[in-house]
Amino acid sequence: MADSPNCDLKSLSPLQLFERVTEQGEKVRALKAGKAPKDEIDAAVRMLLSLKLSYKTTTGQDYQAGLPPKDLLLINNGTTKEEDEDLVDPWNVQTSNAKGVDYDKLIVRFGSSKIDTDLINRIERATGQKPHHFLRRGIFFSHRDMDQVLDAYENKKPFYLYTGRGPSSQAMHVGHLIPFMFTKWLQEVFDVPLVIQLTDDEKYLWKDMTIEKAYEYARENAKDIIACGFDINKTFIFSDLDYLGTSAGFYKNIVKVQKHVTFNQVKGIFGFTDSDCIGKISFPAIQAAPSFSSSFPQIFNGKENIQCLIPCAIDQDPYFRMTRDVAPRIGQPKPALLHSVFFPALQGAQTKMSASDPNSSIFLTDTPKQIKTKINKHAFSGGRDTIEEHRKYGGNCDVDVSFMYLTFFLEDDDRLEQLKQAYTSGELLTGELKKVLIETMQPLVASHQERRKQVTDEIVKQFMTPRKLAFEF
Amino acid sequence: MADSPNCDLKSLSPLQLFERVTEQGEKVRALKAGKAPKDEIDAAVRMLLSLKLSYKTTTGQDYQAGLPPKDLLLINNGTTKEEDEDLVDPWNVQTSNAKGVDYDKLIVRFGSSKIDTDLINRIERATGQKPHHFLRRGIFFSHRDMDQVLDAYENKKPFYLYTGRGPSSQAMHVGHLIPFMFTKWLQEVFDVPLVIQLTDDEKYLWKDMTIEKAYEYARENAKDIIACGFDINKTFIFSDLDYLGTSAGFYKNIVKVQKHVTFNQVKGIFGFTDSDCIGKISFPAIQAAPSFSSSFPQIFNGKENIQCLIPCAIDQDPYFRMTRDVAPRIGQPKPALLHSVFFPALQGAQTKMSASDPNSSIFLTDTPKQIKTKINKHAFSGGRDTIEEHRKYGGNCDVDVSFMYLTFFLEDDDRLEQLKQAYTSGELLTGELKKVLIETMQPLVASHQERRKQVTDEIVKQFMTPRKLAFEF
Repeated sequence: MADSPNCDLKSLSPLQLFERVTEQGEKVRALKAGKAPKDEIDAAVRMLLSLKLSYKTTTGQDYQAGLPPKDLLLINNGTTKEEDEDLVDPWNVQTSNAKGVDYDKLIVRFGSSKIDTDLINRIERATGQKPHHFLRRGIFFSHRDMDQVLDAYENKKPFYLYTGRGPSSQAMHVGHLIPFMFTKWLQEVFDVPLVIQLTDDEKYLWKDMTIEKAYEYARENAKDIIACGFDINKTFIFSDLDYLGTSAGFYKNIVKVQKHVTFNQVKGIFGFTDSDCIGKISFPAIQAAPSFSSSFPQIFNGKENIQCLIPCAIDQDPYFRMTRDVAPRIGQPKPALLHSVFFPALQGAQTKMSASDPNSSIFLTDTPKQIKTKINKHAFSGGRDTIEEHRKYGGNCDVDVSFMYLTFFLEDDDRLEQLKQAYTSGELLTGELKKVLIETMQPLVASHQERRKQVTDEIVKQFMTPRKLAFEF
Repeated sequence: MADSPNCDLKSLSPLQLFERVTEQGEKVRALKAGKAPKDEIDAAVRMLLSLKLSYKTTTGQDYQAGLPPKDLLLINNGTTKEEDEDLVDPWNVQTSNAKGVDYDKLIVRFGSSKIDTDLINRIERATGQKPHHFLRRGIFFSHRDMDQVLDAYENKKPFYLYTGRGPSSQAMHVGHLIPFMFTKWLQEVFDVPLVIQLTDDEKYLWKDMTIEKAYEYARENAKDIIACGFDINKTFIFSDLDYLGTSAGFYKNIVKVQKHVTFNQVKGIFGFTDSDCIGKISFPAIQAAPSFSSSFPQIFNGKENIQCLIPCAIDQDPYFRMTRDVAPRIGQPKPALLHSVFFPALQGAQTKMSASDPNSSIFLTDTPKQIKTKINKHAFSGGRDTIEEHRKYGGNCDVDVSFMYLTFFLEDDDRLEQLKQAYTSGELLTGELKKVLIETMQPLVASHQERRKQVTDEIVKQFMTPRKLAFEF
């Protein structure tokens, strides 16, 4: 082993460096315990010191045994004050900025790529379709390897879509629809198979909930997902609790991922502690495994190398960074990703909507009256305090939640631009903007409810039955 | 919360105390971080100090964050010298005593119960059969709740047997047969269903081995197990890699166990570290789950509460102590256990046989000549250095491996007793004792090979197909 490893170490992540130091420390202890020759021990100690130095240079911190470097996605908004930090992980999204999380900084911090005009134009050329307004408006704003997916697509190579949901309660809110609306569009323009994972096992592990309840929520949520209009011949929806016991390939991929991820790694990525149950600790492998086509032998005819594309909110990225890290080590292609921004709570863009607070969101079960009341009462306004001031100075679309919601749900670009100008100039009052939102959301939710009523238990069963889809592999 | 919790804490195990201290420490930090009222923080700190004191009183050690109390089953043989300690866990068995591990101490250390004459007589009364020589000779020496199984049996309540094997290589040695020979006898005299787990996933996780190889070993080992003579209508053999993907109930029980066991616990029980992969960390739940009848809905008709009895070598007990700890918390009966001693290596009883050293064992693939050579060359002798001394002082059966092996495989009690007396008195020489062993093992292995030849791939497939057995539930 070379004494001066620094040249190789520059490409290592802080976590990888941490593990190298830990391993080397264990080696030194073993050599000493085994009374190895002095020069061998000395060489190992020199290597250890050198690794510690690299660790310090990379992370700015001294190595501490058992304390891996934090990778909790803390993004500093440019100042050093703690209150200005954005916290983004699969369980928390918090920022003190009323405009919401700083997504440009998130891209830099996560090492993903911005979805720029070039990429959007390329998607338009490849599919021959006008890009979805989620793309045009930067709602899906970041990606990993989307160009590779397009390369493959242009060369007539197949890929498939994978997205999912943690079924934490019976009622879903309109924010939950975002990834599904976009995934539906992707499926239609690319004409590819889609798998949708319902992580009822995750909810059972994290919440005070029985297995039966978690599974019930999964099936209820499946109805809302199906009501988005997915093609039954091209879509497989599965509950982990169900599918793990029916698939030859799924568990094999899970155990492969579990062999290649250490507790140190999930500790660094997800912030797990020694007091967490072993179910949580090993769960990330279960969210990783559907990224590999061999988890669905019934769909892909056992083929192993089919590229996967995952549309999801950016808070799910830690799972898939881990997956992309493991993929080449188990001989699988890395999944590509398309990341969306968070859907803001009615009260403001500082946090993500929460299914546990009925006033933080418009739920898919809300009546027209409830929608009207919620928006009028709770939607954070970027308007001025008095009509006079508003007319004079205009409203602020950057922090106005009604305007943000319209960005998500009002498809007409011209109308949206008109509203923006009128609101910013002061011509349009807060109440009037809210009225537009109410008139947009009421029919949207009502027609969703109408479609959901058509989704029988029999249809859910068909979607959730492992089977061949309308594609040849 | 009371300030003086010590009265409640006496019943807690060191590990439970460790977790209470850890949780309380986290609570104090949270209160401080949240700038809670001073009296609230003070009360929490007093509680923390009190818990730390209880921990020190119970374990004799200061509490150290992140370092749970060791539960690695170190058994002190009555002295304080390190060299005299027995190490027994699922991966290691080591003792410096030529007689082997001190099993009476192991019973005290593990908190299990000795299989005494009363229990053996009760088994004889219940079954109307002469107890197996493994029981009569103390080879199965320890149990948990066997009396409960007999209570149930006498009241015509059903139970089932569960045992298993980690398929680490193609060739099994005669020591691997011990639990299967005994389990076969139990199945015959009690007439109950039997499930046999092949932990190919465990071997994949622990060894440098592909999934395909691990699964292949599982099927090869299944042939040797089937050759022991199990009834195909009453026995289900399964590979984890296979069965997890075909059973509705198995994964649900796994995830239930995984929710109720923390990393701290598996760290304490199995000695896992932060550098271990998350697959190893969560694996104990997979060995636990077959203890619950709902893991086999096809056999037990979905019934949840059927008592399980596990015959196994005592080194597997940590898995089942964990299982018994979890069982009531997930509404399942605790599995009962019957523990065997370890099978000694030819070289002496200090270690368990190892499938990776061909000379440490008699393998089921050995020829009569190989058996003869191995025994003559490697079987550790308790005889004297010269014939004269041997005739004068006699041999020592307590350390003589040939005699130990005869205890396992020579069924005739009178013959065994004659051999013991003749060897101890010096009448019988080492070479003569070895000859008896050779003549015992050669036909035993040959007839096993003969039966194994009859086990076709089709028969293996039948045993490994999830199906109803010849019992009504």
